[in-house]
Amino acid sequence: MDVATRIEGALNKAVGSAEQSGCPPRLAAAMRASVFPRGARVRPRLCHAVASACGDDEPGATEAAGAALELLHCASLVHDDLPCFDDAALRRGRPSVHAAYGQPLAVLAGDALIVLAFQTMARASCSPRRLVRLISTVGAAVGVPFGIVAGQAWECEDEIDLSRYHRSKTGALFAAATVCGAVAAGVEDAEAWRALGDKIGEAYQVADDISDAASDEEEAGKPVGKDAALGRPSAVIRYGIAGAISHLHELVAEGISAMPPCANAHELRRLMEQEARRLVPKRLAQFAA
Amino acid sequence: MDVATRIEGALNKAVGSAEQSGCPPRLAAAMRASVFPRGARVRPRLCHAVASACGDDEPGATEAAGAALELLHCASLVHDDLPCFDDAALRRGRPSVHAAYGQPLAVLAGDALIVLAFQTMARASCSPRRLVRLISTVGAAVGVPFGIVAGQAWECEDEIDLSRYHRSKTGALFAAATVCGAVAAGVEDAEAWRALGDKIGEAYQVADDISDAASDEEEAGKPVGKDAALGRPSAVIRYGIAGAISHLHELVAEGISAMPPCANAHELRRLMEQEARRLVPKRLAQFAA
Repeated sequence: MDVATRIEGALNKAVGSAEQSGCPPRLAAAMRASVFPRGARVRPRLCHAVASACGDDEPGATEAAGAALELLHCASLVHDDLPCFDDAALRRGRPSVHAAYGQPLAVLAGDALIVLAFQTMARASCSPRRLVRLISTVGAAVGVPFGIVAGQAWECEDEIDLSRYHRSKTGALFAAATVCGAVAAGVEDAEAWRALGDKIGEAYQVADDISDAASDEEEAGKPVGKDAALGRPSAVIRYGIAGAISHLHELVAEGISAMPPCANAHELRRLMEQEARRLVPKRLAQFAA
Repeated sequence: MDVATRIEGALNKAVGSAEQSGCPPRLAAAMRASVFPRGARVRPRLCHAVASACGDDEPGATEAAGAALELLHCASLVHDDLPCFDDAALRRGRPSVHAAYGQPLAVLAGDALIVLAFQTMARASCSPRRLVRLISTVGAAVGVPFGIVAGQAWECEDEIDLSRYHRSKTGALFAAATVCGAVAAGVEDAEAWRALGDKIGEAYQVADDISDAASDEEEAGKPVGKDAALGRPSAVIRYGIAGAISHLHELVAEGISAMPPCANAHELRRLMEQEARRLVPKRLAQFAA
């Protein structure tokens, strides 16, 4: 079975658990709308890629960890779109969850997706010791002090620690994706895989800056040009478009050099290079320095 | 160490993990304000009581499960108090979290507490197999289809399933508390403990109805008289005050009869009877039929 099918299957099974009789149907619908139709599924793909490179000997663990990471990413988007944060009416080109279902269900769908991530891991068929390591790794990437929730909370401080903000808000789930891939495949020193996730996370942040500066709204599926309008720091403002694209490729290359030895290193390297190309909007690729 | 000290110690350690340098300080403060000063800690006390009755041979598991249940209860209060739900300015006689810290931090503090509950269990020093069972049990009690988040979501449906609403919104964490106590103590058929939690949960719901109907606001620490004003179903409206108090005692007695055999049954029975008395506001105890 190919990776995309495994990822969608695991997510579908997880979200399906909300669609049993006895669950409030509008909550179930809001949860499905938060997770489908699919985005790029970058985090679970990264998790699967590392697990494959390390042997993927308990596929159920990999699928559960990948699904958990994506569910948590979707939960964070639903809560970030709320009127008290970004007040975004659109997400992936469609009405955001609060716009379609109202604020109460957007809060609850986000809460339920957070819990579902942990339920999904706890249900996985794999050795309990690996599961506990996965749950610890994912928990740290989402919660306090350095996970995505803490990252988002920097927006509520008078003095914002910008590097901590980006590392927590965006980087934490990417780093967890590579570490979880290794944990799921039974690698003892899974933390050695964190550097790859960190670099891919930074590259993704640069790609987001490029997309914000250079895409049109239709291509990005969300409002663009916000960084400049809000005076946010951006790799494009710092390096220009061509410089930002080069920087993105450098970051991916640094991530690849930081990879620990593994069985299928060649294939993983190829996937990461492919990912770097995918991250640059097609009509901009020609601008690469 | 007495149970109250163990419960507060575990919660303090969990919330303390947000208070490290590198965590946004206002988020950490909002989390502490959500959990302290302490409420009655009914759910962790119930978890500890069952674990003790069953031998409590891995105290770290009991403490982690108790703390997780309370963190999730606190998270649900913080989110329920938001303007889009109850819009409550007061909680336990003090400003609610959104009133004190604003909506964004109330959303994030709730999110972070949900994650912290799972982090706390994953960090517990106990056998991985017990941990995975605890995480599954707690996850089911909070998430979809039948946990407290699903319970709250019934408020967003056009047709509300009232029995499911109460069982999910209030009962689920009580039932999880008794099951987790048994799991933490290594009981194989821990589900046999669910009936006790169900009955105590129902008794607690009746106590809440009594408190809403008969307490003054200062005693309850929150606005009262809402059930009658909003036409909500209530044991007091159905049975009268004296009848509701009798019904509460009957429910606790039914829970006690449903207890599976265990090492310290006598002590647990005494604790549950004490709890039934504690649940009735002092100045009303005389009205018991």
